[in-house]
Amino acid sequence: MSLDDLAAELRHFAADRDWERFHTPKNLAISLAVEVGELLEHVQWRTDDEIAELIRSPEGKAAIAEELADVCIYLVRLADVLDVDLLAAARSKVAANAARYPAEEVRGSAEKRSR
Amino acid sequence: MSLDDLAAELRHFAADRDWERFHTPKNLAISLAVEVGELLEHVQWRTDDEIAELIRSPEGKAAIAEELADVCIYLVRLADVLDVDLLAAARSKVAANAARYPAEEVRGSAEKRSR
Amino acid sequence: MSLDDLAAELRHFAADRDWERFHTPKNLAISLAVEVGELLEHVQWRTDDEIAELIRSPEGKAAIAEELADVCIYLVRLADVLDVDLLAAARSKVAANAARYPAEEVRGSAEKRSR
Amino acid sequence: MSLDDLAAELRHFAADRDWERFHTPKNLAISLAVEVGELLEHVQWRTDDEIAELIRSPEGKAAIAEELADVCIYLVRLADVLDVDLLAAARSKVAANAARYPAEEVRGSAEKRSR
Repeated sequence: MSLDDLAAELRHFAADRDWERFHTPKNLAISLAVEVGELLEHVQWRTDDEIAELIRSPEGKAAIAEELADVCIYLVRLADVLDVDLLAAARSKVAANAARYPAEEVRGSAEKRSR
Repeated sequence: MSLDDLAAELRHFAADRDWERFHTPKNLAISLAVEVGELLEHVQWRTDDEIAELIRSPEGKAAIAEELADVCIYLVRLADVLDVDLLAAARSKVAANAARYPAEEVRGSAEKRSR
Repeated sequence: MSLDDLAAELRHFAADRDWERFHTPKNLAISLAVEVGELLEHVQWRTDDEIAELIRSPEGKAAIAEELADVCIYLVRLADVLDVDLLAAARSKVAANAARYPAEEVRGSAEKRSR
Repeated sequence: MSLDDLAAELRHFAADRDWERFHTPKNLAISLAVEVGELLEHVQWRTDDEIAELIRSPEGKAAIAEELADVCIYLVRLADVLDVDLLAAARSKVAANAARYPAEEVRGSAEKRSR
C-alpha cells in the first residue's frame, strides 16, 4: 500500500458515508490537533526511559501505533482534500532543510538545529 | 519516492548532523504539535470560503503544503524512531473504522460519524 | 477565588501527592496541548450553529466548561512552576496588541487582525 | 487586575476593532492550539535542565511569559464568549480531582497520577 492508495481509500470511505461535507480543511486541521493531543497523552507524564519501556510492550506499541495511524489518516486526507502532493512537499522541505542546516556546520550544535 | 524512502532520508539527515539524541519520541511528538499549530495558523481566522480562496493562490497553496510537509516529516521520523509501520497501522485503523461505522448505517448521520 | 488562590491550591495538590517531580515545564506544556486537544474534540465536526446549540444545553456547556477548566488548571500550574505572573503578562500583552493594532486602523479589516 | 477585568478588557478590545465576528468558539479554540504550539516551540528540543537555564535568563523568561500570556488571553476570551465562569469551573475540577486521586492512595504512585 502506498500513500496514494491510502488517500484513495479515505476518499471512498468519506464518500460512502456522505462525510465529505464534514471534511473541510479547517475541520481536518482541527482533527490533526485532536489526534496529536491523543498521541501526547501517552508521553505526557513519562520519562524517555518509561516511553522506551512502553514501546517494548506489545500493548504499548500498539496503542502508540494507533495514535500515529490516526494522525497519518487525517494528514493524508487533508492533503488529498487540498490537492497537495504530500511526499513531493516533504521532499522539497527536506532539501530546503539540508541547504539551511549544512551537516558540517551544525553537527553537535544545539543552537542551529532545525525546529 | 515512498514513505520508506522518506524515512530513510530523514534517518540519514539526523545521523549526519548528530541530531539523533534530540529525536526522542517525546520531543518528536512535541514537534508534531508545534507543526500542527503552524498549520492551524493558516485557517485560524479564515472561513471555509477564505481558505478555499487561499488554496487557489499559488503562494497560499505553497504555504499550506509546507506546513503539511513539516507535519509529515515529523510523523514519518517519529514512526521510524518507534519502529512503527505507519501505512500498515493506518490500513488497520481504516479497516477498524469501516467496521465501526458501516456506511449504510451512518450515511447522513452526524451523530455516528467518526471523530 | 482568585488566580493566585487557584495556583496555591494546585501547588498543595501536587505536593500532597508527591507529583511535583512530574510537573516539569515540559510535561505541563504537553498537558496544555493534550487538554486543548480535548477541547477541540467538541468543536471538531460541528458548525458554529451546532456549537451554539451544544452550549445552550446544560450538559454540553458543562462538558465544554470542564475542558476549559483543565486548560486553565495546567496553565496556572505551569505559570506557577515558572514563577510567571500570568495576569501581569496578559495585561502587558494586551497593551502591546493595542499598540500594534490601533482600533481605528484595523476596524473591519481582516488583514490586520491579530493572530 | 482580576480574570474578570481581563475578560472585560478583551471584550472591549474585540468590540473596538469589530473583531467579534472572528471570535467564534471554534476559531478561539483553534487559537489556543496555535498559542500552545508556540509555547511548545520553546521546550521542543530542550532538556529539563536547558529549560531551567532558559527561564533563569530574563529574555528567556520574558519569551515564555509572553506565550503563557497568549494562551491566557485566548482562554479567558473563549470562556467569556461561551459565558463560562473559568475560576468556578477550575475549582469544581480541582475538587473532582481531589476526590478521584486521594493523596494517601496515589502518593508516589506513577500509575494513578492524574492525566
